[in-house]
Amino acid sequence: MSSSFGKELKIALFGESHGTAIGCVIDGLPPKIKLDLKLIEKRMLQRKPGQSKLTTPRAESDLYEILSGVFEGKTTGGPLCIQIRNADRRSEDYEELKKVFRPGHADFVGYVKSMGAYDPRGGGHFSARLTAPLVFAGAIAEQVLWSKGIKIAGQIKSIGQVTGRSLSDFSHFDETLAELDNQPYNIFSENLAAMMAEVEKVREIGDSVGAVVETSVFGLPVGLGSPFFDTVEGKLAHALFAIPAVKGVEFGDGFNFAYKKGSEVIDAFVLDHQGNVQTNANHNGGINGGITNGMPLLFKCVFKPTASIGIEQETLNFNTREMTNLNIKGRHDPCVAMRAVPIVKAMTALVLLDLLIENQGVTINE
Amino acid sequence: MSSSFGKELKIALFGESHGTAIGCVIDGLPPKIKLDLKLIEKRMLQRKPGQSKLTTPRAESDLYEILSGVFEGKTTGGPLCIQIRNADRRSEDYEELKKVFRPGHADFVGYVKSMGAYDPRGGGHFSARLTAPLVFAGAIAEQVLWSKGIKIAGQIKSIGQVTGRSLSDFSHFDETLAELDNQPYNIFSENLAAMMAEVEKVREIGDSVGAVVETSVFGLPVGLGSPFFDTVEGKLAHALFAIPAVKGVEFGDGFNFAYKKGSEVIDAFVLDHQGNVQTNANHNGGINGGITNGMPLLFKCVFKPTASIGIEQETLNFNTREMTNLNIKGRHDPCVAMRAVPIVKAMTALVLLDLLIENQGVTINE
Amino acid sequence: MSSSFGKELKIALFGESHGTAIGCVIDGLPPKIKLDLKLIEKRMLQRKPGQSKLTTPRAESDLYEILSGVFEGKTTGGPLCIQIRNADRRSEDYEELKKVFRPGHADFVGYVKSMGAYDPRGGGHFSARLTAPLVFAGAIAEQVLWSKGIKIAGQIKSIGQVTGRSLSDFSHFDETLAELDNQPYNIFSENLAAMMAEVEKVREIGDSVGAVVETSVFGLPVGLGSPFFDTVEGKLAHALFAIPAVKGVEFGDGFNFAYKKGSEVIDAFVLDHQGNVQTNANHNGGINGGITNGMPLLFKCVFKPTASIGIEQETLNFNTREMTNLNIKGRHDPCVAMRAVPIVKAMTALVLLDLLIENQGVTINE
Amino acid sequence: MSSSFGKELKIALFGESHGTAIGCVIDGLPPKIKLDLKLIEKRMLQRKPGQSKLTTPRAESDLYEILSGVFEGKTTGGPLCIQIRNADRRSEDYEELKKVFRPGHADFVGYVKSMGAYDPRGGGHFSARLTAPLVFAGAIAEQVLWSKGIKIAGQIKSIGQVTGRSLSDFSHFDETLAELDNQPYNIFSENLAAMMAEVEKVREIGDSVGAVVETSVFGLPVGLGSPFFDTVEGKLAHALFAIPAVKGVEFGDGFNFAYKKGSEVIDAFVLDHQGNVQTNANHNGGINGGITNGMPLLFKCVFKPTASIGIEQETLNFNTREMTNLNIKGRHDPCVAMRAVPIVKAMTALVLLDLLIENQGVTINE
Repeated sequence: MSSSFGKELKIALFGESHGTAIGCVIDGLPPKIKLDLKLIEKRMLQRKPGQSKLTTPRAESDLYEILSGVFEGKTTGGPLCIQIRNADRRSEDYEELKKVFRPGHADFVGYVKSMGAYDPRGGGHFSARLTAPLVFAGAIAEQVLWSKGIKIAGQIKSIGQVTGRSLSDFSHFDETLAELDNQPYNIFSENLAAMMAEVEKVREIGDSVGAVVETSVFGLPVGLGSPFFDTVEGKLAHALFAIPAVKGVEFGDGFNFAYKKGSEVIDAFVLDHQGNVQTNANHNGGINGGITNGMPLLFKCVFKPTASIGIEQETLNFNTREMTNLNIKGRHDPCVAMRAVPIVKAMTALVLLDLLIENQGVTINE
Repeated sequence: MSSSFGKELKIALFGESHGTAIGCVIDGLPPKIKLDLKLIEKRMLQRKPGQSKLTTPRAESDLYEILSGVFEGKTTGGPLCIQIRNADRRSEDYEELKKVFRPGHADFVGYVKSMGAYDPRGGGHFSARLTAPLVFAGAIAEQVLWSKGIKIAGQIKSIGQVTGRSLSDFSHFDETLAELDNQPYNIFSENLAAMMAEVEKVREIGDSVGAVVETSVFGLPVGLGSPFFDTVEGKLAHALFAIPAVKGVEFGDGFNFAYKKGSEVIDAFVLDHQGNVQTNANHNGGINGGITNGMPLLFKCVFKPTASIGIEQETLNFNTREMTNLNIKGRHDPCVAMRAVPIVKAMTALVLLDLLIENQGVTINE
Repeated sequence: MSSSFGKELKIALFGESHGTAIGCVIDGLPPKIKLDLKLIEKRMLQRKPGQSKLTTPRAESDLYEILSGVFEGKTTGGPLCIQIRNADRRSEDYEELKKVFRPGHADFVGYVKSMGAYDPRGGGHFSARLTAPLVFAGAIAEQVLWSKGIKIAGQIKSIGQVTGRSLSDFSHFDETLAELDNQPYNIFSENLAAMMAEVEKVREIGDSVGAVVETSVFGLPVGLGSPFFDTVEGKLAHALFAIPAVKGVEFGDGFNFAYKKGSEVIDAFVLDHQGNVQTNANHNGGINGGITNGMPLLFKCVFKPTASIGIEQETLNFNTREMTNLNIKGRHDPCVAMRAVPIVKAMTALVLLDLLIENQGVTINE
Repeated sequence: MSSSFGKELKIALFGESHGTAIGCVIDGLPPKIKLDLKLIEKRMLQRKPGQSKLTTPRAESDLYEILSGVFEGKTTGGPLCIQIRNADRRSEDYEELKKVFRPGHADFVGYVKSMGAYDPRGGGHFSARLTAPLVFAGAIAEQVLWSKGIKIAGQIKSIGQVTGRSLSDFSHFDETLAELDNQPYNIFSENLAAMMAEVEKVREIGDSVGAVVETSVFGLPVGLGSPFFDTVEGKLAHALFAIPAVKGVEFGDGFNFAYKKGSEVIDAFVLDHQGNVQTNANHNGGINGGITNGMPLLFKCVFKPTASIGIEQETLNFNTREMTNLNIKGRHDPCVAMRAVPIVKAMTALVLLDLLIENQGVTINE
């Protein structure tokens, strides 16, 4: 198995949902970053379950401890490790899990891949809880990008049948986007009521619902990424599919390109009023030939409805080899995307900082 | 820039559209593969332009020469290099290209990234012509996978407004899929007329149109891929975005998950009539937790309409800094997807063989 | 900075000498390894300082805690993280260190590389204390190799002017080598007195002395490693130079080859009495063309005398820019090699297990 | 097998001694390098066999052709591929080679690793002929380093019993070193006669002899390399062991450290007459903690006497499983080090340019 990624900025992720601790090692951070603990706290809180009845009420404690890589409040340039202890390690009846693998989850593949030796409690190493250290790491990357004028906005674009406005409306990171960062679930206020109703509808019947998260990044220099195998699209998609439940990634007009004529999707080069090169549209989502072109980076990813639902399912009992009724205990997110925006932002920030370091180096000024 | 990828099976791609030669080095192939020259020929012909009036009539000669890694018709286990000489190296008036970057192409980013030093002729290293050596490499990978019972099917799923049947209808690689492999443009015969009419419609007016390519892989073992950063989805998407014009990748139900309830997309475990574990549906496209679950791998990618159209465009002249009319000379693919299926198959085969070697090793039996 | 290595088996090392904790993440271990806690304990004790007056009397507590990757005593196949808390974090007067960099240490380069932001206490991330988690990781790798019939022997070959017998005398891992594993400092009993006297001699005058560590590995299959860039020699050397104070690595006859004729160093192929292919000598140290040839792997590495000595040194004060007398407080290893054999074994085991997994996969049988 | 290396600057090497062509792809070169064809020619000539009776008289034609990555005489930033056609592909009686593996060569391990499928002619992919494209690549790297004030000197330090002066005598790249670059075999003129006599002695009796190559690099910035796994020592050694016949690498005092006291090898910090930080000695060879400290980088590597000698050897016939007399036909280098200095320089330049790009980026000014 492989839980490491990155080229200049490397992440080694570790931990199981109900093990001793989860965490990560971040290797390659520039020295002298004065950690913005408030941003870290904010992002981790946005990801944390149990913030409302619309997300899972499990009481995860996300208290992190920095083990290395920070001295007198600043990064040293050495590897930064954090751990988050698992407060609640009470052992559920996981023997059951070894007989009846939950449909749509990684139980079965995890079992086969480890030849039976994996930790089945709460999904083990496959648990979405592992995104907590990623959000920590991403917050540091986001802080560094911000200091270089690169700003990430993210929102829930749609839940079930309810679709809101698009981030493609924004050419700059303005006050509206700054507010969006503080909105519940990162949903624009005008869409909040309708989207929450959509979630409430499935929550009441013990069901779940899918959603789309949209991200836009402003202020990227021209020239990040490389042709063919290190395109910005490829590197971002690689990282985004690390997020549990993501099943599709598209850039700019994405799958809508399928229905379009070439003449309808031209991003012609123009000068803006300051004499800078821009394109007069952004169908390509800020990327040509796999490389940033200076326009806002724009992409969406789809989150499938969580497979853990309160409704009884019929599936195989691997011991008896007969069909059985499965009731997944506990309460679960009716819509995982409610907590997904900070995770998408984290992966985005990590990939973009990696590319920025590769492209031009990143030096922290005091 | 970076034009290398792969872990156990590594590809180093080289060349420019109008340079001396294009090609690639394939490192990590198992020894003793007796090259299936007919399959290589078939795939390269399917990718080659100029096969009909619906693809670009440029006369590319795709005669490859194997420079290393093959001895007495079999791979040696050493790096295999091929070159494809560029027969037609007549120099177009590329000075024009340095003034008027084509919208939607990599000219501008290539110029900035190389500080002006890149080869602008025909897109240089960014040219889709570079997919020819990838198709060569992919054909070898496809042959090896086939010998292990792993079979790849691909089709054009939709062009513009015309959508055909889905590969999700197939649970095995049967005769219909074998025929599909020989169909023009890998389009099911029942869809061919309607799709060709859609292309003809835009071709007549000098325009282009988008499309979706769908792929399914049968016979994969359970357990390829790893949680988080080396998911099958992430690795495949990374490679697929290397294909020029791909702007989105989705697995299983993909973006349709956004509109679905969890109860509607359950892939329950069942036993098939031979007593093997299967799921009774395949919404997840053969992947759980980033790892193959034994069901057919199913994904789609969208190709944007080619940006090179016969219709006059208005864009910036970078020298005069004024808007100018751009007429892109020559004739171009009205729908790049017409030649895309063999390329998608190639990238798929390369990624899956890489994963298979990592997972269990691959030995060629005589 | 980069503190990660390995291809199939990846190590991410973290921590500073006087920070919160040191440790590592080991990614890619096969599942189902029942951890041999006694071997881990033994190796960590062999590395630990303060075991006698001939090693540094600092009281490092090497109590490790496994944070992840082990379930019910066995590896899960997921990343295994350990931390070792730094009990003694009393802050020495490190302001001094920022003015007077210790000659022969990493203080100066660490300062420059981090632009002043590094943790200067006890060498920070550069500290040899970081070898403790490597020894932990190596013990697991050694256990797995042992279960596959691959056995590592190591000894101090020479200290200062005293040179003992060579491991090249051994064609198999026999009882003598098993005993060596339990000898103080892994020194053959017949050499122990002379070598300890050599160390005592420098210890008394506050000085230090260099040494050579020799390693031999028995039972390796033919075929590990690859030509050119992944030779066994290159990969091992890369890893061995990670050990602080190592300044040279040689295989087989090593630098003695310089004085030899080709006819004097022939390793001719012969059959042993069981009909297996062997060579009748082992000048090449078990490697031809960068690849294991089935003979014992044999190599040496030299450890420089530790730069921290009790004798006053004159060096630059970077603040005043004048020369100053430096007295390095505390007591230090008069011969770092006294604790080096378990570290060399660890790096060796990690590299060889990585190669073995790549070459043929490693499955743990119960 | 794996014939790729490098992080920012990647080399993919290909070819067999008697195959169609050998060559390499160099990925990650900065754009705008105006190739210094004279330096390339000089280095390739220095490596080429047959320049005198003291090197092998085989007529290798090293005419290279650039296939990609250069436009109008300058690098584009895209992958640069060269091929060198194998003029002389006459097939020797290689069936013999499959029965009687040459001792000390890679025939046996190559056979086992490829399960019999490798190209046995002239060593196949293991041939030292593969260093020709490496020397080409290294010459470009050397040119770039030179333009940044980084200069590489190399010499044959010793042959057999004859040892010459050391490069440690030089604190700068002066005229004497510039002359050394033009000396036959890169041997200081005062040592030339004695060393050539040593080679002549073994040549006459059909034997071979070992040698040591010494390298020093001037003008490196402080801070290249990283602690633990990407030390300059580790990365260089990894690359140097790619050179056929290298069996040991040491930095600074190297294995002589074994006999030294700490007080004898202090590199104290001092100011030079211009007020720059230096050390008053260079026992550590320009590296502390794995990182360049601004002093000349100094290292040696040992070349074993070539295993191909004119003297009859007795070894195993793998078919008959009986001992046989082996006469290796053709004439071979009595001392491979005679052509080794340009190869060592090439590997050194490639590794250092890779580190320089990683550390601070490299931009070519016109």
